[in-house]
Amino acid sequence: MKLMRVGEAGSEKPALLDADGKIRDLSGHVADIGGEAIGPTGLAKIAAIDPKSLPEIAPGRIGACVAGTGKFICIGLNYSDHAAETGATVPPEPIIFMKATSAIVGPNDDVIIPRGSEKTDWEVELGVVIGKTAKYVTEAEALDYVAGYCVSNDVSERAFQTERSGQWTKGKSCDTFGPIGPWLVTKDEIAEPQNLGMWLTVNGQKMQNGSSKTMVYGVAFLVSYLSQFMSLHPGDVISTGTPPGVGMGLKPPRYLKAGDVVELGIEGLGTQKQTFVADR
Amino acid sequence: MKLMRVGEAGSEKPALLDADGKIRDLSGHVADIGGEAIGPTGLAKIAAIDPKSLPEIAPGRIGACVAGTGKFICIGLNYSDHAAETGATVPPEPIIFMKATSAIVGPNDDVIIPRGSEKTDWEVELGVVIGKTAKYVTEAEALDYVAGYCVSNDVSERAFQTERSGQWTKGKSCDTFGPIGPWLVTKDEIAEPQNLGMWLTVNGQKMQNGSSKTMVYGVAFLVSYLSQFMSLHPGDVISTGTPPGVGMGLKPPRYLKAGDVVELGIEGLGTQKQTFVADR
Repeated sequence: MKLMRVGEAGSEKPALLDADGKIRDLSGHVADIGGEAIGPTGLAKIAAIDPKSLPEIAPGRIGACVAGTGKFICIGLNYSDHAAETGATVPPEPIIFMKATSAIVGPNDDVIIPRGSEKTDWEVELGVVIGKTAKYVTEAEALDYVAGYCVSNDVSERAFQTERSGQWTKGKSCDTFGPIGPWLVTKDEIAEPQNLGMWLTVNGQKMQNGSSKTMVYGVAFLVSYLSQFMSLHPGDVISTGTPPGVGMGLKPPRYLKAGDVVELGIEGLGTQKQTFVADR
Repeated sequence: MKLMRVGEAGSEKPALLDADGKIRDLSGHVADIGGEAIGPTGLAKIAAIDPKSLPEIAPGRIGACVAGTGKFICIGLNYSDHAAETGATVPPEPIIFMKATSAIVGPNDDVIIPRGSEKTDWEVELGVVIGKTAKYVTEAEALDYVAGYCVSNDVSERAFQTERSGQWTKGKSCDTFGPIGPWLVTKDEIAEPQNLGMWLTVNGQKMQNGSSKTMVYGVAFLVSYLSQFMSLHPGDVISTGTPPGVGMGLKPPRYLKAGDVVELGIEGLGTQKQTFVADR
């Protein structure tokens, strides 16, 4: 299933995209796309609904594909070829950092370049949405705790991230730096999360063109690994790292300016399109 | 006012501690200690209530002093003498990192030493609770956005933090690593946040004995600084760094074992007491 949230920011309705590409209103059945609704029992209930029985919603703004995200965990340098372009080596264990959940926006919302930014950059990433509380889970059982997948743009301000005193959070957490969606695609639709084509363009020019098959630490490993440190809860999102082609890795580097349009997508998970704008 | 949350985990009631040390039930007036209730208007409404008109609640478990925390932001190496004991220098700008909000617990709850931990450590810190959304605020106006203060123990696993591949989040975010409370003390009760005595004992032995007056970057500066990078929202908590005396800084270092009891407190903000226990 392709689950989504549609409507103005802060008042999105839960919905699904049916086989004909129509948006169907789920608000008569679930409060939102998040919490128990995306657990195994909740998803089974939604799957049992005939989409044609649901009211159609006219296309409009699409919100972030999941609500109530408590943790937005990102994995650093998780593609060997991306690590190389940034001059780093692949870490012996996953690098994890947090993106503020207040950065989360819809997939096609404007992204605000923060005041003082000169190095705003893009990162297409496979997002993993947790559906069931996970603690100390093994790699073999890890996918049981995953509700599904989404497109994530891990927007990053490189100077804030690396030139403003330790720790990356500062350059990762700016408002609007976390577009996720358009859909939470349930894992039954994604036979092999480690073989998904992924791409990103800036003003129509292809910048990233990779595949999740070159991920160093795969989805099941990451869920298991993270769960050794902390409980993962329904609605938590893991953004699993980016393939080569970010602005920082270009020679010379290239960063985003107001008016730039970024489009990105992952095979089976839909596409995003953001206009980058100056802060007021 | 001393605002608090009392009851079993997940079903705490909002309450206040009156001048006689009695716990008074606020649930007839506010949904929880968080969101709009801790904004300027919300706090004025609570202040207008005669505490004696509120039902008394028998002492019991105390929950985290604020609900709905979206971001738990910590400041690293923010006391010059603590930086020295860890072998680091004071950073030219504040170091910020995130602690998972899923780590938050009540002030006297057991703290679970995670599996594989050998270096679980303590850090008494002044917690700042945001009451009003702050973005690009100046240092002069920053305290207008603060609801109040609390005691915070920024429990840390040093090996996870520094020996397991980049970024500190890993050693800061374990479940139960974020006791906050007992009270959210509104800022009108704290005339000078930069002159509060703070202390921590392990099994009765004094380990930390400092004052917020040796903080490098003060509360108003931090709120302003953080708001340049991201919006701060009501309920967000900033843990502002720790004075000297953490286990990592001792010669030889000393870390917590199951059965150890940690007590800590800050002048005017109350005390916490945690028993450290092994994970099941």
